[in-house]
Amino acid sequence: MATLAAERIAAPKRLLYGPGPSMVEPRAYEAMAQPVVGIFDPYFFHIVEEIRTGLREAFGTTNPLTFTVPAGGSGAMEAAIANFVLPGSKFAVFAAGHFADRMAIMGRRQRAEVVRLDKPWGQIFTAAEATKFIGRERPDVVAFVQAETSTGAYQPGKAITTAAREMGALVIADCVTSLGAMPVELDANGIDVAFSCTQKGLSCPAGLAPISISPRAAERLAQRAEEPSTWYLDLKLMAAYFDPPHTYQHTPSPPLYYALRQGLAAIAEEGLTERWKRHFRMSQRLIAGLENLGFRPLVENPDDRIWHLTTVVPPRGVDEAQLRRELSEKYSIEISGGLGQLGGKILRIGTMGPLATAENVDGLLEAIAACM
Amino acid sequence: MATLAAERIAAPKRLLYGPGPSMVEPRAYEAMAQPVVGIFDPYFFHIVEEIRTGLREAFGTTNPLTFTVPAGGSGAMEAAIANFVLPGSKFAVFAAGHFADRMAIMGRRQRAEVVRLDKPWGQIFTAAEATKFIGRERPDVVAFVQAETSTGAYQPGKAITTAAREMGALVIADCVTSLGAMPVELDANGIDVAFSCTQKGLSCPAGLAPISISPRAAERLAQRAEEPSTWYLDLKLMAAYFDPPHTYQHTPSPPLYYALRQGLAAIAEEGLTERWKRHFRMSQRLIAGLENLGFRPLVENPDDRIWHLTTVVPPRGVDEAQLRRELSEKYSIEISGGLGQLGGKILRIGTMGPLATAENVDGLLEAIAACM
Repeated sequence: MATLAAERIAAPKRLLYGPGPSMVEPRAYEAMAQPVVGIFDPYFFHIVEEIRTGLREAFGTTNPLTFTVPAGGSGAMEAAIANFVLPGSKFAVFAAGHFADRMAIMGRRQRAEVVRLDKPWGQIFTAAEATKFIGRERPDVVAFVQAETSTGAYQPGKAITTAAREMGALVIADCVTSLGAMPVELDANGIDVAFSCTQKGLSCPAGLAPISISPRAAERLAQRAEEPSTWYLDLKLMAAYFDPPHTYQHTPSPPLYYALRQGLAAIAEEGLTERWKRHFRMSQRLIAGLENLGFRPLVENPDDRIWHLTTVVPPRGVDEAQLRRELSEKYSIEISGGLGQLGGKILRIGTMGPLATAENVDGLLEAIAACM
Repeated sequence: MATLAAERIAAPKRLLYGPGPSMVEPRAYEAMAQPVVGIFDPYFFHIVEEIRTGLREAFGTTNPLTFTVPAGGSGAMEAAIANFVLPGSKFAVFAAGHFADRMAIMGRRQRAEVVRLDKPWGQIFTAAEATKFIGRERPDVVAFVQAETSTGAYQPGKAITTAAREMGALVIADCVTSLGAMPVELDANGIDVAFSCTQKGLSCPAGLAPISISPRAAERLAQRAEEPSTWYLDLKLMAAYFDPPHTYQHTPSPPLYYALRQGLAAIAEEGLTERWKRHFRMSQRLIAGLENLGFRPLVENPDDRIWHLTTVVPPRGVDEAQLRRELSEKYSIEISGGLGQLGGKILRIGTMGPLATAENVDGLLEAIAACM
């Protein structure tokens, strides 16, 4: 233990151009030094309410049941699935990436009958495909990934939700990578349950997972006869903490809330749509630069690309692992390789929050060029 | 959203004399301002390893499988139960408080047959009681609470683990309130699976939950045929992140790790047993002072009391809610009332970490006297 005693933490300053964790907003760091308060402190609930307001705006919803799951993004994914996908029910997953696979796995663990519509990774689903699949399977719950972190593909949701609503199915959307960085628009898109994280589009540290639940889904939650297998992620119990009379369930971590409040404040200051546009412009700049260097976007249709997470196939002769290693060693730049079936085949480059500026994008392109 | 834009976070400075969250070590606050790094960064794994070393010492174990669950203490409780209490198996809970009840609830949600041995809240279990109960029920897994946050009772564990081991049952212990503040001693006590939190005896913010798994339990985990219902809290998947080759499961929150590293460093600097002794001395001082004021300890046997969490019945004529309100308003002091069946009947007073000094204990006693 002697080694633990003397040192201070001296973490290296990395430039986090990966798919997340992304760079943290400076005022969020500052906020974490603020004193911890008790879990029923009126000041804490004031911060919680500000966060809920900010999250509703970012999610594009008026859902009263919008709050934070005390876990990472996959914890909120499990909360969504464990609370809404009942044992024995039919759960339809639109699968074209690693995180859709994860939802299917979680559905099976809840003892649901999981049916999948698979497409090649990097593609999205059309309304015709969704209608056919949902019409044939008649599932109780449908899930899709709005921004698939493993492929860089963006599927707003309307194509799927329209078909699902016609059949009376509830729709769960993975918004882990979209929230705060590009349009999520739950209400306009007809999404019932959406979850996210704090360490990507919101420019905060990981550790909290925003979730939003439509009134239609909230009603199902209220009427649910059987308790879910999870107690920690039981959304009924969890929700009871966030609204008066604030029934104790878990102990939230104030520094993460302070940081999130300030991450949302930074978004409010810039304006949510301005932030989206900035991510879009920088995406265009990055892709043009990468194409000049011989990289090819994985997601073929430009409209289907996540703005702040670009996935590219490297030019022949460029070893992606070697490139990442050099960027890390020479420039302290972190970009990411592929996940699962795309491992070794693509690069995933995030330009989120503070890094989505012309200067940073150009600096990254120069560093990549120098390491090729 | 306009209200979010301008303000800085200005949290009030509370004196957290409750059962947790407790006061945060100053160097832990400082650490959270350090830059976030990626989840595979060598620096991050360096910090993780330091934390695992520090946790093993605090847990009193050599268990290689000692790490942090990305959730609060109840998340780690669920991880322990969902991974080791199999559907259809028999789960025996020693129940004399709110958190034992919570374990029983979680066991039922895992579709286990839950059997309970109940005693009045505030008492602990004898070896004879444990032997009789376990001998009769022959459970697969046994659970008890080492430091029952709802009652202030401390049960080291040997009385229960001896009986359990004779019957070949695995033992889970809730060490949420004991870790870092008084003896846990997993190996000496024969505990197989222990979980805790960061916001009590470790003097850190909430958000991470230490867990430690004995080789015997690790073997059961490895041999388990059926996957647990939870994916997020699947300890097999989670453990694979912490050791090479570090397989991705969840995204850890670096600021919480930096803080925990520094909380453990503060413990190492003082010496773990010195810290225990300080908590014990301050407990004696606090109880003597409270008895002078007419309060009566809930836990009758002094040996069965948690050192850093004192539970007392107020003297006749003192309204506990009113007392808490006044302490909060006049002194910004937070102490806590009872939970569940002890609601309105007791006070729970924590003297943890930075608050376990003669000056702080005397200051608290003066404030209580002034508000009576």
